[in-house]
Amino acid sequence: MNFSLHPTLETDTHPLFVNADCHLLLHKYATLPWLILVPHTRETELHALEIPEAEKVLERCRKVSAWIQAFFDCPKVNFASIGNLVPQMHLHMVGRKPGDACWPKPVWGHLTESSTYAETLLAQIRGEVAPILDSIS
Amino acid sequence: MNFSLHPTLETDTHPLFVNADCHLLLHKYATLPWLILVPHTRETELHALEIPEAEKVLERCRKVSAWIQAFFDCPKVNFASIGNLVPQMHLHMVGRKPGDACWPKPVWGHLTESSTYAETLLAQIRGEVAPILDSIS
Repeated sequence: MNFSLHPTLETDTHPLFVNADCHLLLHKYATLPWLILVPHTRETELHALEIPEAEKVLERCRKVSAWIQAFFDCPKVNFASIGNLVPQMHLHMVGRKPGDACWPKPVWGHLTESSTYAETLLAQIRGEVAPILDSIS
Repeated sequence: MNFSLHPTLETDTHPLFVNADCHLLLHKYATLPWLILVPHTRETELHALEIPEAEKVLERCRKVSAWIQAFFDCPKVNFASIGNLVPQMHLHMVGRKPGDACWPKPVWGHLTESSTYAETLLAQIRGEVAPILDSIS
């Protein structure tokens, strides 16, 4: 399908991976590992996806979340589909640990502290997550 | 499995449905339709569920979310697995519409206004959602 990212998602993130089915983005706020999967769909609600597509989206989120947990050494991964401000479906996966910049609050509307990713770390993240999503057909 | 609800979930909600696999709860804050599915698992992270169990949980959340959208006439359903304060896995499904008590912010950490459910509405909600979950074996 002809798909273009919502401008807010484009502005707020670094692109990590794209194929015919989805974008994977990294929030520019580097204080917490915050990845965003954007399935290429015109539906806005997660529950509105047909089951095969929903299961594929779930599989991508499972694998990316497990990678976040391992790579960033986070005991928790917060997962959410919100979209009150940006209607294009996008799924947040945020690695969390006690004592992090926003703990224990969820990031949405609470995370203000910000730092930026070094290019070397960004390249390493891209190099690790791309094969994970590439392996899901 | 031998399962008991986390005391915070028990205190903050009305029970709607329970079977061998899950509890379905309704947050006592009645300003927004806020339902919570608690799968009977010792895992705390959604991505850590085995695939058949994850797909069953997804199917329950899909059906409950679709029901929230229809019954409460909400264009959006916010979905989240957070658990920073209550580690027992619990999945939020919150019906949202522009102009509601918290719009456009997510409810977590932002919803302060509160009202309570009338017993008649509570009974109606129970009567509608129980058969939905009962139909998923």
